[in-house]
Amino acid sequence: MKGFGSDNHSGVHPELLRALINCNAEHAPSYGTDLYSEKAIQHFKKEFGVATEVYFVFNGTAANVLALRFLMKRHESVLCSTISHLNVDECGAPEFFAGKLQALPHTFGKLTLATLQAAVIRQGDQHYSQARVVSLTQPTEMGTCYTIGEIKEITQWAHSQNLYVHLDGSRLANALEFLDCSFKEMTSDLGVDVVSLGGTKNGLMMGEAIVVLNSELAKGAHQQLKYIRKQSAQLPSKTRFIAAQFEAYFQNKLYLQIAHHVCRMANDLYEKLASIPGVEITGPRESNAVFAKIPQAWIKPLREKYFFYVWDEKTFECRFMTSWDTTAADIDGFIHQMQQLSQRKLFFERT
Amino acid sequence: MKGFGSDNHSGVHPELLRALINCNAEHAPSYGTDLYSEKAIQHFKKEFGVATEVYFVFNGTAANVLALRFLMKRHESVLCSTISHLNVDECGAPEFFAGKLQALPHTFGKLTLATLQAAVIRQGDQHYSQARVVSLTQPTEMGTCYTIGEIKEITQWAHSQNLYVHLDGSRLANALEFLDCSFKEMTSDLGVDVVSLGGTKNGLMMGEAIVVLNSELAKGAHQQLKYIRKQSAQLPSKTRFIAAQFEAYFQNKLYLQIAHHVCRMANDLYEKLASIPGVEITGPRESNAVFAKIPQAWIKPLREKYFFYVWDEKTFECRFMTSWDTTAADIDGFIHQMQQLSQRKLFFERT
Amino acid sequence: MKGFGSDNHSGVHPELLRALINCNAEHAPSYGTDLYSEKAIQHFKKEFGVATEVYFVFNGTAANVLALRFLMKRHESVLCSTISHLNVDECGAPEFFAGKLQALPHTFGKLTLATLQAAVIRQGDQHYSQARVVSLTQPTEMGTCYTIGEIKEITQWAHSQNLYVHLDGSRLANALEFLDCSFKEMTSDLGVDVVSLGGTKNGLMMGEAIVVLNSELAKGAHQQLKYIRKQSAQLPSKTRFIAAQFEAYFQNKLYLQIAHHVCRMANDLYEKLASIPGVEITGPRESNAVFAKIPQAWIKPLREKYFFYVWDEKTFECRFMTSWDTTAADIDGFIHQMQQLSQRKLFFERT
Amino acid sequence: MKGFGSDNHSGVHPELLRALINCNAEHAPSYGTDLYSEKAIQHFKKEFGVATEVYFVFNGTAANVLALRFLMKRHESVLCSTISHLNVDECGAPEFFAGKLQALPHTFGKLTLATLQAAVIRQGDQHYSQARVVSLTQPTEMGTCYTIGEIKEITQWAHSQNLYVHLDGSRLANALEFLDCSFKEMTSDLGVDVVSLGGTKNGLMMGEAIVVLNSELAKGAHQQLKYIRKQSAQLPSKTRFIAAQFEAYFQNKLYLQIAHHVCRMANDLYEKLASIPGVEITGPRESNAVFAKIPQAWIKPLREKYFFYVWDEKTFECRFMTSWDTTAADIDGFIHQMQQLSQRKLFFERT
Repeated sequence: MKGFGSDNHSGVHPELLRALINCNAEHAPSYGTDLYSEKAIQHFKKEFGVATEVYFVFNGTAANVLALRFLMKRHESVLCSTISHLNVDECGAPEFFAGKLQALPHTFGKLTLATLQAAVIRQGDQHYSQARVVSLTQPTEMGTCYTIGEIKEITQWAHSQNLYVHLDGSRLANALEFLDCSFKEMTSDLGVDVVSLGGTKNGLMMGEAIVVLNSELAKGAHQQLKYIRKQSAQLPSKTRFIAAQFEAYFQNKLYLQIAHHVCRMANDLYEKLASIPGVEITGPRESNAVFAKIPQAWIKPLREKYFFYVWDEKTFECRFMTSWDTTAADIDGFIHQMQQLSQRKLFFERT
Repeated sequence: MKGFGSDNHSGVHPELLRALINCNAEHAPSYGTDLYSEKAIQHFKKEFGVATEVYFVFNGTAANVLALRFLMKRHESVLCSTISHLNVDECGAPEFFAGKLQALPHTFGKLTLATLQAAVIRQGDQHYSQARVVSLTQPTEMGTCYTIGEIKEITQWAHSQNLYVHLDGSRLANALEFLDCSFKEMTSDLGVDVVSLGGTKNGLMMGEAIVVLNSELAKGAHQQLKYIRKQSAQLPSKTRFIAAQFEAYFQNKLYLQIAHHVCRMANDLYEKLASIPGVEITGPRESNAVFAKIPQAWIKPLREKYFFYVWDEKTFECRFMTSWDTTAADIDGFIHQMQQLSQRKLFFERT
Repeated sequence: MKGFGSDNHSGVHPELLRALINCNAEHAPSYGTDLYSEKAIQHFKKEFGVATEVYFVFNGTAANVLALRFLMKRHESVLCSTISHLNVDECGAPEFFAGKLQALPHTFGKLTLATLQAAVIRQGDQHYSQARVVSLTQPTEMGTCYTIGEIKEITQWAHSQNLYVHLDGSRLANALEFLDCSFKEMTSDLGVDVVSLGGTKNGLMMGEAIVVLNSELAKGAHQQLKYIRKQSAQLPSKTRFIAAQFEAYFQNKLYLQIAHHVCRMANDLYEKLASIPGVEITGPRESNAVFAKIPQAWIKPLREKYFFYVWDEKTFECRFMTSWDTTAADIDGFIHQMQQLSQRKLFFERT
Repeated sequence: MKGFGSDNHSGVHPELLRALINCNAEHAPSYGTDLYSEKAIQHFKKEFGVATEVYFVFNGTAANVLALRFLMKRHESVLCSTISHLNVDECGAPEFFAGKLQALPHTFGKLTLATLQAAVIRQGDQHYSQARVVSLTQPTEMGTCYTIGEIKEITQWAHSQNLYVHLDGSRLANALEFLDCSFKEMTSDLGVDVVSLGGTKNGLMMGEAIVVLNSELAKGAHQQLKYIRKQSAQLPSKTRFIAAQFEAYFQNKLYLQIAHHVCRMANDLYEKLASIPGVEITGPRESNAVFAKIPQAWIKPLREKYFFYVWDEKTFECRFMTSWDTTAADIDGFIHQMQQLSQRKLFFERT
């Protein structure tokens, strides 16, 4: 059974599975001192810049909250959007591990510079938790992408205010497709300080990376992040099985192939959905997610075969997400079923 | 390259790898609602008792500290041994996630009832962090095993004092071999409240389980542990890849085959080490670890081919640990090398 | 020098100072086991109900965050207003001690039932920090008061949702004046679960109380709150010096005299301010605070003699607050100065 | 009723009470910006060195744990004695606010350099919480004092290991008497980094100070400690009432008068106790505490008039502590009663 629920409903990409099988030989030192980790880290440095420091962790929440714990003091705050994963999908993990969140209004998932500026107040006032980190999600939870210019503008301003910029990039590669740029051009070159780079939603079995780009921070990271990771219960023991996947993910730019595929599939879905009477597209398609309102009555029959999430339980806005294993046939099958529902609806409305 | 460093230096057991490959098809719901999780949980219930509740997490530190966070209030204490993994190998994770540790003296890794009793003091005194959990490691960090009688005695006393009993079982199956009993007979039947059941050190790629045995706690676990796990960044998204391994681990009692193998190999190593002049065995062999002092000069040449840890940097007591993939040839090769070092030593001592 | 900055700029009320002096004789057991504490607690039981349990702490932030820590699990959330003291004046203390805050929009500082209802979503979803406490401030940070009906309606709904109701009452007595009711009628009788009762802003030298009203919670409080308080560094050692003040505060209903005075003074100020051309009152006067916009140019000269806070740095809305020691002469002096500024303004505007 | 229970059973010293009464006039800015705070801080600078930064808090636990929170990261450890207040009398507050404790064996409350050196192990090992702070209590919980030479030796070694030295000085002035030196000579001059200076046990109503001596730390303190204090619920609002007491405490070296008195009284008690048959002195008298074993049967009758604590419930070692208000008559009365018990005992033993 396949569907459009989430890109973590699919399994492991065949090339990544092969990497897992291939590294399963002999003994390897545990806790990150193996050769697979070394090689994977070289790939990160090639993709993000030579100063980059990398810390593998198990999942996306961990990559986010450990990055924040590294960047801020317990009494400081993170500026993020009201619908950021940090704010509404991590069960208070940021507050537990790192500090306070200041959730700000957004447009299709994106924060504007003006919104951020208005949130930096009462500087130096001991009663007020001082902002220290801006956290952007790229692509956002609504599937939109910050442009290169937007990231640059926010980053420059943030640094002028003594704030760090964190990028929640659980699907970061998918933004490369839309922006037509490299990881480096989208992050390090713009001054982004730390990225949470996702693997699990991009075809890995599991595994994410805290990627420290700011070279000053990177120098000091070793004295902090390794202990933070261990104390946070995120130090993988058989690290080679995460590292080998990342090595394969970067090898021959597999990440671009996967990103290209999921975005193409999503675009196909977007265009076909847009043409169905009764479907109302609710936002731009800029990565591998499509948001649209559909009649409530369609949800149950559609989900019997193709699972997807109802994003807003009041308006019946739904989220449709493609994966590395989504096929043209999956989309056609889904669209076909929806067309039938649409025709039946039109028929009943007319009669 | 293979060695005797740790049972997490080996890779994935072939049957467990097969389980991983086999479950990599189609989509599965994420976050524990898949069929693999359901089937694995049935195995846990069969092995530990029907009331058992199971929460998969990524690693052993997480299984320990989330179990503790579930069992105690932030202001309470855990009684554990000074050399427990909790106290010296988790970088303060128990204090970060759960509460205070009271580290107590031990004998070959084991706590006695008398030691525990002497530590329960100042009950009701608001200035003193009140003991709430006794944490035993089975087998201990020294490779010894609590007997059924010892566990029972401690558990009964603990409950009489309103304390819970947690078992750190990162290699729990190996104790079954020594005690010749079932999981249930070693845990639930004796009143153990929660077990951290290890997978990674027993042949899995990664994956551990918080196993709630106490039926009262198990009833309430769902309202607490799922949130605790998520907030602690330990909710795996593609859960099937942990669950499918545990399913295979229990299927046909593979865990007993692995435990039997590692213990037999360790015993072989123990007996052969004991016969080498210059080697001093320092403790009983009750699971898959052997502890022995060897001359300092031997360490470097031995580790070039077979890695192992120096346990005490002053006495040169070393720890030798077998894995599911340790072969008779590995042991013979290692023993052979040590015999050569021993003969050379004898030769020099005589001349 | 006196002013309208805050009711914690004034010193200790003479009757409370006398109580301090009187209790300074001989030895008294420390940590809350003295006779002064016993007598003060009897007063609380008389004012709030016999089931009431009381825990003295040093300041208002402590009373708030310890109350929350008692009421919720670390992974749960508090519903509060965006301008609540909890959210913007405690430097992230609630997130450090207790859990996540969900800051909600308000009207003159008050939350509506509809706003609260809309915030209770995704119940049972492990990814989402579950709401557990509604925190109302009475009087609010804008000086307004929830009516008896409003508190009752919110409390009944909260309990139906398995939520607790916490009242941040750093100036609670002042609301009695406006609502013309007793502490009990405003809290226990309406089902409020826990009150943070302020002393410092009502004439005490220092000292606040966590007042547990819910009888079920009160029964269990002793096993939790005494340890929570001690671990949170809020157990006063010479407790008699807080307790004796509260005893005097309740004796002969001194709290009502003080509340009556500060409200009368505030009302006087309100009415006189309202009559000055150039001053724009911005909200109702329901306790001892008056909010008004004044011309920016007046701020500096006015503050040279009478300090007050600029509440909004963009609109020049200011907050004027009366204390137990505010006199009619203080108000007349202040109003006189403002009238002069107003006349000068009118003069310049005309010419 | 008076006794020898603790120096926090006595009330406020008359000169300190006078200071409280005198500062109770007019309005003063809250939260530490008042003139009393300014003047008190000047006294600290005079006593401890000009670079000193001072943060007032409510109680001793707070002074300790906030100092630690300032000095260490969450994943680091404090080396302290097993009987330190930190370890056994703060209900896990250090672990809640700061990090892990490593409790080490002591002699009459004092740690030796050798013990500390042996505890600094596994440096750079991510699995092991790294030591960052040495915390000494002066005078210790057993009433003994580290000598100038001992503090210097430990401090020099600590700094060579990149460790900070914290002094828990809840009764610090009493050590001045025994060592015949100034605050500066006992702390700043020896390289002590931060002192928790007690007030409550030295005659104040309440109030302690975090005293940052290390000039590098002092420079950065303002950007950290003010927020740490506020978030930890330890920012006093009517700060003048703590500051004015400290001002008076330093004025005319009142602290020396008090320290001299309590030590002289304790010495008197020590000598008289030593002469009573049946009493066994168990340690040196170096501050205001005397430890002695007495027959179990004496405890009840003695405590009816003069309260004191049984320190060890098995050996009946008791602690007798003098206060600023202890008089020669108190001691004579107590000794007289004990002599009577002693004579009765001798009589019964003979007959």
